[in-house]
Order: sequence, then structure tokens, then C-alpha cells
Amino acid sequence: MSISEEIKKKSLRYSIQSWSKQGNLNPVVAEKSDNIYYWDYEGNRYTDMSSQLVNMNLGHGNREIAAAIKKQADEFCFLSPAIAVKSRADLAEMIVKLLPDNFGKIFFTNAGADANENAIKIARLYTGRKKIFSRYRSYHGSSFGAGNLTGEPRRYPLEPGIPGFVKFFDPYVYQEKIKFASSKEAADFYVSKLREQIIYENPNDVAAIVMETITGSNGVIIPPDGYLQGVRAICDEFGIMMICDEVMAGFGRTGKMFAFEHWGIKPDLVTFAKGVTCGYTQLGGVGISSRIAEYFDDHFLSCGLTYSGHPLSCAAGVACVQYYQEHHVLDNVQKVGKVLGTILENLKEKHPCVGDVRYIGLFSAIELVKDKMTRKPLVDYGTDPKGIMASIIGQLKKKFFMTYSHENMLLVAPPLIITEVQLEEEMQKMDAVLSWVDAQYM
Amino acid sequence: MSISEEIKKKSLRYSIQSWSKQGNLNPVVAEKSDNIYYWDYEGNRYTDMSSQLVNMNLGHGNREIAAAIKKQADEFCFLSPAIAVKSRADLAEMIVKLLPDNFGKIFFTNAGADANENAIKIARLYTGRKKIFSRYRSYHGSSFGAGNLTGEPRRYPLEPGIPGFVKFFDPYVYQEKIKFASSKEAADFYVSKLREQIIYENPNDVAAIVMETITGSNGVIIPPDGYLQGVRAICDEFGIMMICDEVMAGFGRTGKMFAFEHWGIKPDLVTFAKGVTCGYTQLGGVGISSRIAEYFDDHFLSCGLTYSGHPLSCAAGVACVQYYQEHHVLDNVQKVGKVLGTILENLKEKHPCVGDVRYIGLFSAIELVKDKMTRKPLVDYGTDPKGIMASIIGQLKKKFFMTYSHENMLLVAPPLIITEVQLEEEMQKMDAVLSWVDAQYM
Ligand SMILES: Cc1ncc(COP(=O)(O)O)c(C=O)c1O
Ligand SMILES: Cc1ncc(COP(=O)(O)O)c(C=O)c1O
Repeated sequence: MSISEEIKKKSLRYSIQSWSKQGNLNPVVAEKSDNIYYWDYEGNRYTDMSSQLVNMNLGHGNREIAAAIKKQADEFCFLSPAIAVKSRADLAEMIVKLLPDNFGKIFFTNAGADANENAIKIARLYTGRKKIFSRYRSYHGSSFGAGNLTGEPRRYPLEPGIPGFVKFFDPYVYQEKIKFASSKEAADFYVSKLREQIIYENPNDVAAIVMETITGSNGVIIPPDGYLQGVRAICDEFGIMMICDEVMAGFGRTGKMFAFEHWGIKPDLVTFAKGVTCGYTQLGGVGISSRIAEYFDDHFLSCGLTYSGHPLSCAAGVACVQYYQEHHVLDNVQKVGKVLGTILENLKEKHPCVGDVRYIGLFSAIELVKDKMTRKPLVDYGTDPKGIMASIIGQLKKKFFMTYSHENMLLVAPPLIITEVQLEEEMQKMDAVLSWVDAQYM
Repeated sequence: MSISEEIKKKSLRYSIQSWSKQGNLNPVVAEKSDNIYYWDYEGNRYTDMSSQLVNMNLGHGNREIAAAIKKQADEFCFLSPAIAVKSRADLAEMIVKLLPDNFGKIFFTNAGADANENAIKIARLYTGRKKIFSRYRSYHGSSFGAGNLTGEPRRYPLEPGIPGFVKFFDPYVYQEKIKFASSKEAADFYVSKLREQIIYENPNDVAAIVMETITGSNGVIIPPDGYLQGVRAICDEFGIMMICDEVMAGFGRTGKMFAFEHWGIKPDLVTFAKGVTCGYTQLGGVGISSRIAEYFDDHFLSCGLTYSGHPLSCAAGVACVQYYQEHHVLDNVQKVGKVLGTILENLKEKHPCVGDVRYIGLFSAIELVKDKMTRKPLVDYGTDPKGIMASIIGQLKKKFFMTYSHENMLLVAPPLIITEVQLEEEMQKMDAVLSWVDAQYM
């Protein structure tokens, strides 16, 4: 048996795979990776057009981050959160300085779900209120707290839900039954519906409104101008904490360090993970406004985890954040993001199956429909009995274009270091596959 | 300002500390660590008598684990869970082989809380039932799911709780109002109370019973012989999944690889974290019986997280597990654990303030009382307004004996590589501090 076959066999035999039936898995076995590519043991080169799970913003094989990990491993790997260490102190300072000026401190976690878990706990402790608002068509993680924030099927196995978690609808304008005259009209509509719902849920018991600033895995749903400002105003009116989940959209993905900067608002709490270390090590966290942070000077912060601010992970985070800054990664996102936008608009024009394209920076989704006029999705919500979306992902994979789908949408979110030439080369493959979809399903 | 002062200042200014009021923190600033020690920048040497958060089982500066991390960092740090990689496949196989023969697969997580989150999700999916039993005086993590399993004040900020989570009492024999004639009588009592409670909660809707095999941070509460066998029989009777939380007790802490081995039982699901990598990198997971694992061959496993089976962490795990085996660490635990037991019994004999000592392997707690006869705790449950326990921890710290307390208990759980000579040297400090407690508070 080849090494590759042996790894695959062992992997299938002894480890169980997320979000899957185990019976029919056939994973790629990876040997190495670099830049926007990874290779299997047979030498096939795969292009990573989703930055893995939209976390490897700086792509594969970043030498600076690896060097920082190795250096910290030579000093020490771990000391408990109660002991002050340089890498954690440095990274906390760096992130606070990236955030708006109302931010004061960081609480570190291992990943995105626990960042959201802790953000809502902090909001409840600070406000003394219980209710938490979050949106349908959002994903915030799969643990009970984060999963109860989540507004799609990945929440179902966590039900019956946690009392006090309330869902509202997001501005998914493309599939909305009402057609809006302008994005201002859309923003006003969604904000006023939210305000109405909060009033009926008792604003004095609402601790927080949690939103992905830009909804990520549910299809890169970008809020219309004015929407986030409107939510901010509701939060101010009722003393509600505004929590932006920037786990996927943060750390440069959209061409700004944090996605909410596009609309000039300042949340009270920000959750992050993925891009802070690009997954080289596990790290997440909560950015906390100074006002909230000060409250815990003389109130007990009833939050904690063994690996809060893991020193090795923080060392990776310091190197990662430095890399964004020193290599002007945001400039590349803005520049190549424009090219991506143009390509996507052309695909929409050309292909009957493409209903909508949504993009900001290097964060984009292609929404597939049966009919451009009615906007009827190519597959119905929550069901795809013929495996149409899997077959499209399979066609892309044949061309070594690696990404994933969600409902009737294809995600395109390559590493932020991608060049225009690389992007154009890969998007030609997408073009070809969309022609195949047109031929197959239209 | 010295480097050390600068780190401390930055740390207090920009990062927020678990389980604390922030106003009066004064952390040690660590520069380096080795074996059972760490040092501050002034050259003070601290002895780590709690293995940090009972996770650094192999102590500090383990070169094999650091080398494995560095080697993996040179190859690649991360690829998503859907891609098969060598370190994850190898570690899954190694852990399955450490577990009893009814185990089949591993689901990897980042830490202990999310291991428990996923274990209860898996039990619910597999059984189709909703209720989850867990115990008072247990800690299972601080996210909403794990925190709702938790049976002590760290659960309070997560309330109102998740529907269907039911608590029962553990065999905390020392403080029980009934006095038992034998440990068999105690075991029978607690098992029959549990069975009674399950019957009144509808056994056909109980998915799982979750227990720390040996309750850790709530005071090293060791079950009487026959107890776990009795719980196993209840689970078999009603088709309930038995979940052992081995996050703290597992990976050699008690002198066996898993604590449940002391009683010869086989759980259905086992959660682990801490000792699997000793915290050098973050890793946790769920061991899944073959019967449960097979169910997911054709049923959707609705669990997942970005960093499930992080390749760098799995590489650390492989080196760590190899180290336990190649260096016969369990033998040392059994040998030095005996010495620890003798020392603790002597302390109990000598000091009026020591009500009980509980120990197994290198896992132990000293329970402090006002009066040996009445067993009245030195501080009342959930309140210590005079800061008595903090002052005792402070006395130990003055001697550079570093550990933590919980309620009226002091934890002693040094790295498993500690020698007899090292242990005796440190426990003399404990002896002196207990004399101080006798003088101060008796
Ligand atoms: C917006 C958002 N929040 C939270 C999470 C959960 O992060 P993790 O998988 O690290 O727990 C994700 C993961 O995809 C995410 O996209
Ligand atoms: C028995 C037990 N379970 C679970 C946990 C939670 O682990 P983590 O802090 O890694 O989430 C702990 C942490 O101390 C623990 O002792």
C-alpha cells in the first residue's frame, strides 16, 4: 500500500468527519502546500479557492508565521492564562489597535464558536439582561451557545433551544419577496422590522444583537448601506450590545481589516478567529469595548477556558498580523478584488444559471438559479436529493479548483495573496463549469 | 521600564483575564520554563504543582513535543478537516488503540469544552433522545453546552439553562450526611438514587449520563468501588450512553491511561483534551464506540468545527502519546503517586486543618476544615469573604509552590515526570503552610 493509501485508510477507519455521512467519503490526501496550492502524494496540484474554510487568508506555507511558531516552541509552548507572557500581551495590544478607538481589551479563545460563546456571556454579564438576538441564514459555530445563535440547519441538533435566543431576518435582498427601489429603502425596511421585533420582545431584556457583519458561509450576504448604522442606532436607543461576528469577514477578507469599517460603525464587541492566525495555530477572541472592559475591573468575569491566549498561538497571531501590515495585504485584496468583481459580473451576464453574484474584497458567492426571472434557486432550501450541488463541486474538483457550496451557492474566497494572473486562470475553470451547469440543468 | 514590567503592563491593559475581577491582578511574568519549573525575568524559580491547569502532564520544555511541532510547521501547519493528513490519521489510530476494545473512532476538537459539546450532540443524534444527566460538583467547560453540564457556580451565568439537562448528586462520601459502613454501601446508595431519578425523568428520553470519571477541579472526588460499574449497568438497562469526561483525569494523571480503567468499565463515549498534547498545542476530542461510529456511516454527523483535527496539534499529540509510552510515564505516576499518598496521609494526621486527603496517581486534593469532627469546611460553599483560601495560596506562592484552590480544597497535581526527591522537597513547603493555617485559623 502506498503512503497515501495508508493515510487515507487510517483516516477513514479511525477518525470521524465533520458534517458528513461517513460511508462514502473519499478525501484528498495532502502531502504539502504552498501559496494558493496544495499537493497530494501523486503530485496533483489543487488550487485552494476557499482558503480552506475561509481561514487561510495568507495562504499556505507562510514562512514568517511558521518561523514565529518554531521560535516560540523553542522558548515555551504553553503557560496558563493567569501567567503574563510576551506573545499574548503583544497580540492583545496589536488587535486593540486595529479595532476602533472605543475598544479596550481582548479575551482570547481557541476558535470562532467559543469567541461567540464568550461574547454573549460578556454581554449578558455586563447588561444584566438575558435575551440575545441573532439572524436566520447565519452561522456562528456549532457548540450549544454559538449553535443557538446560528440561523440555519446546523442549529437543528441543538434544539430544543436555549431560552431567550431570538431570531430575526437578515437583509437578503436578492431573494426578498418585496422589491426595493433603492438600497436605502431596503436598509430602512429591515431596520424598522428589527426595531419592531425588539419592542415586542421587551427591549429592556435584550442583552445583545449578534450578526455576521457580512454573512459568510450562508452566501456572502452584504448589508445594504445604512443597515448596520440603523442597527447601531437601535442598540444605542435601547442599551443593547452590538456584537459583530468577524470570524470569517475579519482580518482583511473584504479589503478592510474588519468588515464593519466599510460602514463606519463601532460595535461593542467583536468576535474573530480564522484570519488572526490564518489557522496556522488555533486562535479566536473577543474584542471588548473599553466601557465593557472597565465594568469587569470590579465585577467577576465569569468566563474562562484552559487555553485562553495560548502563547504558541499568540506568537503565530503576532507574526500573522505583522504580515498583513508589512506586506500591504489589504492593498492586494482591494486590487485583485476589483478584478474578481468584474469577472463575476461577466459570469452573471453570460450564464443563465447564475442568478446573482455578491462580492466584496476577495469574499464572494455565486448564486445559482433555475430561472433568472423568477430567481428560483437551482436546488430547494435544505434539500438537494439529486446531489446537483455536489456534482458541480465535483466538476470544479476535476479541474483542481477546490471550494465548497452552501445550498444553491458557490463560494469563491481565495487566499488574499492571490495574484490577478492566478485569479484569472482559476476563474476560467469556473466559467467552463458554469457552462456545463447551463447545459446540464437549464 | 524592564521587559517584565512592560509585559505585565501591556497584559493588564490589553487582555482580559478568565474567572477574575480585573482590578487587582498581579500576574507572574514568565520568561522560560523547564521540567516542573518556570522562571520570571528576575530569575525566580516557581514550582508548578498543578501542571498549570492540570494539563502539562509531561511538564515544561519537553523537547520531543516541541520538535514534532517544528517538524510539522516545516511541512504544513493546517489543512481543513476534509483533507486527510498523516498526523491526524496517526493520532486517531493511536488513541483508539489506547481506549478499550469497544472504541472505533475519534472526533477531534480544540479543547475540553468542545469535546463535551460534541459528545452530547453525538449521544443525542445516535439515541434520538434529548435528556442529558450530569452531576453537581462537576466542571465540564464554560461554553453553553459544556457549561450546562457543569454542576457548580461556573454554570450560573449560562442560565436559564438548556431544556433537558438534568443534575444528580455525585458520591462525595466525605461530606455526605449519611455515614456509610463500607464503600460498597456508598456505591449502592448513589447508584440506586441515580436509577430512581432516571425513572422519574423518563429513561426512554435520556440520551446520556456525563461524568468526570474522577471529579477534578471540584476536589478530586474518587468514586467508591462499584459505583461506575453500577452506572454502567443503568446505562445498559435503559440504552443510555455513558460519557466519561477524561479531560483532566485522562492521559496518565491517575496512573492509568484513562481513569475508568481503575474500575474495568467501558464507556460509550470518552472526552479528552489537556494531557493528549499537554497543552503544547490546543487539542481535544471524543472517543466514539464502534457501534456509535457505525451509525454515522449512513446518518449525517451534524458536528463540526474549523479546526477539527488540526494537523499541527495532532503532530504534537502523536509525539506526546509516544512520550508517555516510550518513557514509561505511567510507571513513574504509580511509583511517585504512592509517595504522595503517604505524605498526604501524614499531613492529615498532623494538621488539625486537614479534614480529608484524596489521591490517586498524581491527582490529589487536600480538603481543609474548621473542625475534623464535624467536617465543617474552612470556608462556606461559594463564599470566602475574608479571602482565606487566597491567603493560603499566597503563602504557598511565597515559597514558590504554585497551585490553585477550589472552595475549601487545595489541588496538588504536579507534572507526571516529577521525581520522589522533587515531590518531597515541595511537600515540605505544603507542610509548613498547613502549620501556618493551623495557627491562623484553628
Ligand atoms: C462567521 C462565523 N462565525 C463562527 C464560526 C465558527 O468558527 P469555528 O469553526 O472556529 O468554531 C464560523 C466558522 O465557519 C464562521 O464562519
Ligand atoms: C473535567 C474537565 N472537563 C472539561 C474541561 C474544559 O476544558 P477546556 O478548558 O479545555 O475547555 C475541564 C477544564 O478544566 C475539565 O477539568
